[in-house]
Amino acid sequence: MIAGDLERLIQLLARLPGLGPRSARRAVLHLMKKREALMLPLAEAMARAAETVTLCSTCGNLDTRDPCGICQDPSRDAKLLCVVEDVADLWALERSGAFKGRYHVLGGTLSAIDGRGPEQLNMGRLVARATAAGAGAPGTSAAGTSAAGSGVEEVILALSATVDGQTTAHYISERLAGGGAAGSGVAGSGVKVTRLAHGVPVGGELDYLDDGTLTAALKARRPA
Amino acid sequence: MIAGDLERLIQLLARLPGLGPRSARRAVLHLMKKREALMLPLAEAMARAAETVTLCSTCGNLDTRDPCGICQDPSRDAKLLCVVEDVADLWALERSGAFKGRYHVLGGTLSAIDGRGPEQLNMGRLVARATAAGAGAPGTSAAGTSAAGSGVEEVILALSATVDGQTTAHYISERLAGGGAAGSGVAGSGVKVTRLAHGVPVGGELDYLDDGTLTAALKARRPA
Repeated sequence: MIAGDLERLIQLLARLPGLGPRSARRAVLHLMKKREALMLPLAEAMARAAETVTLCSTCGNLDTRDPCGICQDPSRDAKLLCVVEDVADLWALERSGAFKGRYHVLGGTLSAIDGRGPEQLNMGRLVARATAAGAGAPGTSAAGTSAAGSGVEEVILALSATVDGQTTAHYISERLAGGGAAGSGVAGSGVKVTRLAHGVPVGGELDYLDDGTLTAALKARRPA
Repeated sequence: MIAGDLERLIQLLARLPGLGPRSARRAVLHLMKKREALMLPLAEAMARAAETVTLCSTCGNLDTRDPCGICQDPSRDAKLLCVVEDVADLWALERSGAFKGRYHVLGGTLSAIDGRGPEQLNMGRLVARATAAGAGAPGTSAAGTSAAGSGVEEVILALSATVDGQTTAHYISERLAGGGAAGSGVAGSGVKVTRLAHGVPVGGELDYLDDGTLTAALKARRPA
C-alpha cells in the first residue's frame, strides 16, 4: 500500500551501498519531512552531477573538467605518479594533503576470482604515461603528462595491502621494470617504482594489530 | 580537490539517516559508475516523489492522493482505527497484512524531554475522527471516516513499548475515555480503546529476552 512513486524511490535508494530496504525506507521518510531543505536539493544535485561530472581521460579521476583539475594543475609535481585502485583512494590521499604529484586511477585490482585482468583496468594508459615520459617510448599517447612538459620519474603504488592489491602492485612493478607484457614493446622504462610503507597505523595500539602488520613493522624498523 | 558538484552531492547524501560522510562518498562513487542505470533514475524518482507525494489530510499517511489510498478504500473496515507513531509503522503493519482497518499517524510521541506536547502531534484530528463517528459529536470534520459511512468502534494503539510511547498511549486512552482535555467538550466517546499485546517475539529465544518482556509475557499467558 506504499504509493508507487515512493516505492520506486525506496527501491532505487536501497541499491546504494550501505543501504538496504529498511534504511532506504527510513531515508525516504526523512526526505519527505525535509522536502524543501533536502529532498529537492538532493534530487537536483544528483541530476546535475550525473550531467557534469566525467572521468578524466588522462588519470581516471572524476571531475567536471577533462583533463581533471589535478592533471591540469601546473603546481603539482608531474614527476610523481601515484597509482590508486579507486577514486575513493585518490580522495583519501587528497584529504591527507601529503601528496602533491599526480594520480592514476586503475579502477580496481587484478583479481583471478572475479576474472579481472589488466585489460579490464586502466593499465595500458598507466604504462603509456609512465614510460612515454620517462624513456620516450614511441607511438604512445601521453596527453596528460605532456601538459606540464615533464616526465614521470617515480611511480608510487598506493594499492590495498590485500592479496589482490599486492598482486596488482607486483604486476605493475614487473611491467614497468621492462619485464613487460607481450606486445607492449617497452624495453625498460627506467622509472622508479615504490610502494607505501607497511607498519603500525598512527594511533593504533599494538595489542589490537594483526600479526602480519606487526611483522612488517618490525622488519621495516628505523632508527628512533 | 573533489569537484564542487560531487562535493555538494556527498554533503547532501550524508544528511540521510544511516549515512555519514564516508558512506556518502562510497554511494556517490557507486552512483557515478551506474549513471544511466541508477543515478539518473534515482534523481528523477526523488524529484517526482517530492512533487507528487503528500500527507493525507485525514490520517497523516504519505500518498500521491489525498485522502490516501487506505482512507479511500471502501473494502477496509472503517470501524477499526489503528494509531501509529509514524508512517514507517504504518508500512510495517501493512507489510504484515494483519490489519484491514484504517490508520491514524500521530507523527511522533509525547515527549517531555523533547518538549513535544499533544499540539505538536496529529492528536486533535484523532479525537475528532474517533469521537465524531462514534458519538456523533457536532462540528468536527470527519471526511475520512464518512467515506465508508461507518463510525469508529475501536481505536487500536500500536505505539512503541517505550516510556514515551506508553505515555502517549495512556494520554490517548484517557482523552478518548472522556477524561478529555479542557475545551474538547467530549463527554465520553464510547469508543473501545485497545493496544498491541506484549510478549515473546515470534522466533525469539527466551534466553535473550529482557526481563520486562518476559514478565509481560508471563502475566498475559493464555491456555495452551
